[in-house]
Amino acid sequence: MENIVNLCKRRGFIWQGSEIYGGMSGTWDYGPLGTALKRNIMQAWWQYWVEDREDMYGIDAAIIMNPRTWVASGHTATFSDPLVECKFCHNRFRADKLGNFGANVTTEELVTAKVKCPVCGKIDWSEVKQFNMMFETKVGATGNDVAYLRPETAQGIFTNYRNVVDTMYPDLPFGLCQQGKAFRNEISPRDFVFRSREFEQMEIEYFINPKTWEADFEKLLNDCHEFLEQIIGLPKDLIHELDVTEEDRAHYSRRTIDIEFDYPIGREELMGIAYRTDFDLSNIQRESGKNMEYTIKGTTEKFIPHVIEPSFGVERLLMAVLTSAYTEDEIAGEKRTLLKLPEHLAPFRSCVSPLLKNKPELVAKAQEVYQTLRQKYHNVTWDDSGNIGKRYRKQDEIGTPKCIVIDFDTIEDNTVTIRDRDTTKQIRTPISDL
Amino acid sequence: MENIVNLCKRRGFIWQGSEIYGGMSGTWDYGPLGTALKRNIMQAWWQYWVEDREDMYGIDAAIIMNPRTWVASGHTATFSDPLVECKFCHNRFRADKLGNFGANVTTEELVTAKVKCPVCGKIDWSEVKQFNMMFETKVGATGNDVAYLRPETAQGIFTNYRNVVDTMYPDLPFGLCQQGKAFRNEISPRDFVFRSREFEQMEIEYFINPKTWEADFEKLLNDCHEFLEQIIGLPKDLIHELDVTEEDRAHYSRRTIDIEFDYPIGREELMGIAYRTDFDLSNIQRESGKNMEYTIKGTTEKFIPHVIEPSFGVERLLMAVLTSAYTEDEIAGEKRTLLKLPEHLAPFRSCVSPLLKNKPELVAKAQEVYQTLRQKYHNVTWDDSGNIGKRYRKQDEIGTPKCIVIDFDTIEDNTVTIRDRDTTKQIRTPISDL
Repeated sequence: MENIVNLCKRRGFIWQGSEIYGGMSGTWDYGPLGTALKRNIMQAWWQYWVEDREDMYGIDAAIIMNPRTWVASGHTATFSDPLVECKFCHNRFRADKLGNFGANVTTEELVTAKVKCPVCGKIDWSEVKQFNMMFETKVGATGNDVAYLRPETAQGIFTNYRNVVDTMYPDLPFGLCQQGKAFRNEISPRDFVFRSREFEQMEIEYFINPKTWEADFEKLLNDCHEFLEQIIGLPKDLIHELDVTEEDRAHYSRRTIDIEFDYPIGREELMGIAYRTDFDLSNIQRESGKNMEYTIKGTTEKFIPHVIEPSFGVERLLMAVLTSAYTEDEIAGEKRTLLKLPEHLAPFRSCVSPLLKNKPELVAKAQEVYQTLRQKYHNVTWDDSGNIGKRYRKQDEIGTPKCIVIDFDTIEDNTVTIRDRDTTKQIRTPISDL
Repeated sequence: MENIVNLCKRRGFIWQGSEIYGGMSGTWDYGPLGTALKRNIMQAWWQYWVEDREDMYGIDAAIIMNPRTWVASGHTATFSDPLVECKFCHNRFRADKLGNFGANVTTEELVTAKVKCPVCGKIDWSEVKQFNMMFETKVGATGNDVAYLRPETAQGIFTNYRNVVDTMYPDLPFGLCQQGKAFRNEISPRDFVFRSREFEQMEIEYFINPKTWEADFEKLLNDCHEFLEQIIGLPKDLIHELDVTEEDRAHYSRRTIDIEFDYPIGREELMGIAYRTDFDLSNIQRESGKNMEYTIKGTTEKFIPHVIEPSFGVERLLMAVLTSAYTEDEIAGEKRTLLKLPEHLAPFRSCVSPLLKNKPELVAKAQEVYQTLRQKYHNVTWDDSGNIGKRYRKQDEIGTPKCIVIDFDTIEDNTVTIRDRDTTKQIRTPISDL
């Protein structure tokens, strides 16, 4: 994991947020290569779930929502972690993470278990308090109007369900999809981009007839696997389904599957898919007084749709892509590091180089090839730094699948060398076939 | 303007944020069609400024930044509007907007000018106070660590300048580009999406040698025009340059051009391009203690680069696109409304329809054509609602350039009718030519 974090920093993928001022805990900034990778992942998701399906619609709701949203959803009352303070050194901790405790851990339990303060070593705990993880702010000039940064994108979908039904007249079942930032004031952000305070979600609320929930759930679960394995290209053997037991599920959910992934930090949740019944729309109907029923077209049958929610975190997906692509191998006795990124996700699809930088005829020919490919494919890069071996190492590290090299033979016969990132094998091919 | 706002609401482009709870002032939610239009505009920008240029790099920084960012940039001290309260009815207003006043308007000026409270009519003003427009929140478990939602994306670029130089080794001049949300606690959000509290920016910081600033500025200004007119397709005659005078410019800027647009609400700022000298990087160097100099490759010449900043607001651009596309005309004596959106920005490129819904052979053939086009172009829609005339009206309103209709002749000879949105003219063409 440390090697991957270092590569991300050194090559311009991901930096600590506000690093120049000593950082901002729980935030991350994406450099040019990380931005390209993240955009490619998000675009692949959008195309698979929204553009290539007839039953899905994209929406894009605001981050700052009316605070009644969070009353209806239950976040105001219960979206919290147990917080405890060491009365001796005044450091604060997530109480359940101080040992093998549940979310309702008490001070007595900590004392009985002889849990020491991880900083000063004393056992002098305050009362455990529930700490709400929503970021609070004030909106408008009065200073009284409290609002929250959304802790999930899902509610921006539910609150627009009625608008979509009334303007787009979708057939049931249909899904609403959203990508965007969400914020949680984690007490202890950790594990690189895995658990941060500001993150990007991609969520789908799929509205169904409750009579067919089992079949709809199976279909969406299959689609999730197809997306992760075929579209994103994650190795199947690193992906695991965890059927969440009734006691661990949210009270309203009748089925929840966590899809876990073998990260270097261990097997952790990559995404989830939950059957949420009519919990959300019924809450909104109660809080807003607006009717959330859907009338089946051509009939008088109407009901509040039930919901299945596949929920993705961009950073967790990106971290799965990066960590499973990260490879160390040995080529002719020399160690090398490479990112085996799929071609459609890699920041650059290919790199064009003149064999030697100080030969103007090679540089001119290489520029010609480069400009032609860029115009067609955009994400093609140029590299004439150092020697050719160093360039290969650099392109391997940033995951560029192919290096195209222009040499003296190119001038003669218009062929170039294409060197493959994963095998390091080189083939000769005419420029016209590139 | 009212007609456009109504169309946006009725057809699923843009809704008031949190509408179901009575709204959240200054926020907007995008429906399926608005989301598609917004994404198309943002992608066109990214392709033009980042992917198609060799001198630009994309980055993606966090919204919550270390608060020293805003000390260095000057936002903590001066990013404020004059706020005044009517002591009788306790409503609050932006003091300068109560009449023709400057930003430093005083209570005395209001009283002398006999400005009455717009709500209760009394003249009983509080002291005018400077109201900082940054949204404040608290990060972490102590409750003491104040942070702000970024009021602009620009600072997320400047704070990463050093990281980019150290990892990507760009040649000067080079630009860093970012798209993302920004937040300003406007006292009075207004004019649809034009001035909201949560909005999306697309900013470029272009780092240059100060010796060449005039030529670099001209080039970027030309690129801005090319982007607005050729890529986005805004009518040239609605675009105006305002050369901001020295007294209206920020003190550090040596040249600023506001590009204004003729909106239905009047001529207003669409975007700006400002020569900011080394103001930002010098501030960061002072605040962080880190060296911001750039060394010209192959020389010992080094200096803090100067910056030219083209700054775009997504919503203002989207509003320019929508309002200039909005057209009311008359076809055969019947009034109609249409959005003359360019094909590459429209939510749907084309719509496929069977002439009659109750003829299975037409529906089957139309579905065949529809599925073929969708697979290739994604953004193709299907419409078999109402009669053909109504479908045309609907597709006109949402800006779909072409309607493809399958009729009985199609079954015979595999030709279809293509009906053009702007001219309403119909041509007959073989399916294979679509």
